[in-house]
Amino acid sequence: MSGWIAVAGLGPGDEALVTPEVSLALAEATDVVGYIPYVARIAPRAGLVLHASDNRVELDRAAHALRLAAEGRRVVVVSSGDPGVFAMASALFEALEAGPEDWRALDIRILPGITAMLAAAARLGAPLGHDFCAINLSDNLKPWALIERRLRLAAQAGFAMAFYNPRSKSRPHQFARALEVLREETGGGTLISFARDVSKPGETLTTVTLAEATPEMADMRTVVILGNADTRRVGRFVYTPRRAG
Amino acid sequence: MSGWIAVAGLGPGDEALVTPEVSLALAEATDVVGYIPYVARIAPRAGLVLHASDNRVELDRAAHALRLAAEGRRVVVVSSGDPGVFAMASALFEALEAGPEDWRALDIRILPGITAMLAAAARLGAPLGHDFCAINLSDNLKPWALIERRLRLAAQAGFAMAFYNPRSKSRPHQFARALEVLREETGGGTLISFARDVSKPGETLTTVTLAEATPEMADMRTVVILGNADTRRVGRFVYTPRRAG
Repeated sequence: MSGWIAVAGLGPGDEALVTPEVSLALAEATDVVGYIPYVARIAPRAGLVLHASDNRVELDRAAHALRLAAEGRRVVVVSSGDPGVFAMASALFEALEAGPEDWRALDIRILPGITAMLAAAARLGAPLGHDFCAINLSDNLKPWALIERRLRLAAQAGFAMAFYNPRSKSRPHQFARALEVLREETGGGTLISFARDVSKPGETLTTVTLAEATPEMADMRTVVILGNADTRRVGRFVYTPRRAG
Repeated sequence: MSGWIAVAGLGPGDEALVTPEVSLALAEATDVVGYIPYVARIAPRAGLVLHASDNRVELDRAAHALRLAAEGRRVVVVSSGDPGVFAMASALFEALEAGPEDWRALDIRILPGITAMLAAAARLGAPLGHDFCAINLSDNLKPWALIERRLRLAAQAGFAMAFYNPRSKSRPHQFARALEVLREETGGGTLISFARDVSKPGETLTTVTLAEATPEMADMRTVVILGNADTRRVGRFVYTPRRAG
């Protein structure tokens, strides 16, 4: 059996942010598996089978990829950003755990990528330049009460924060609630940045205070970065100093 | 004035993890500024001046780079990992804030890279696959009491955690204290991973429970990743499921 599986991060969108390691894996692959818009980023070529699927079925997609590798195919599962940050790597290991024992002997590699919050932070300046946390605001896989509790504790800890999946059509009110909780905990003066389509055509960056922030500033293509109490502007940039306390 | 400054992340060590964006900036640069071992990674060529300096002088180094750019040079400040995560980007903006007003008009870009925790997480599996935080355990720039408080709140929030600069010769006892605090908050069963020299020759990965962890498992070349209560092993991997609560 010469099959393998690589779960690869394509970064936020710009091809100049795809690592050579990922490009090499794609060049050697027989199969690419992933969510439709990520597979659409892969150039078709002879001998490469593209398997594009809908976003709601991460576990099925992971199991499909593992089956292909077990049959001897060379499979790249593509994620945007970094596969280990709210993306396909955990889903792959969940499928591995639930699957047949012999899958565990497969050649499995996770290939890191530039995750959305770090691409956004770079464009904004250095808002994550001090201790920070990353929170997925979707309550698909955890209760909303847990998210609120995390927001409060993270604010009390003085973390800068990055929020993935801040808002979607199916849950338009929760991000408003998140902003409310954060205002209660930190006051309205903290800087908050909305980075949409980072490194892609139409990229937009908006920074306001928490008091000025409205839920409509975010959608599913936005990563949101909240500073800590020391986060400030210098020129056109936003940064969080290294020093605290 | 055609000078510019780019603060670039070189990733954890392997050249296959350097983005094409960073390689291009290095190819166009007239000057590379950075800490000695990072500058040592840059191939010398005609027309490129390498400025290697000691680690203790981030602010001086940043000001030096800004002065060079103001003189019309094309300057890359090199960081390991990602420049926005406990690296040179914040130092650059601190120097910008303290410097002459006209520096703020300079062409300044931050070029993201693969940060140590995400490179380590990829090698280990997906230990940061759920909400997580990143904490710099050095108390050079913040009081130790604040670090302990953050550890406790992060544990109460159920974050997975990545620790940068866990231990050095000048402060050998603090990491022992950090382990003690984490054991108090989470119990001894949580998985903790020590990733040293990730993607470099001699890379080592060790995963134990918090009860089994000893301070000697970490040094300044180690990034430490603590799971949350759900983090588990599957085959040779460690991962944190997406679901919680």
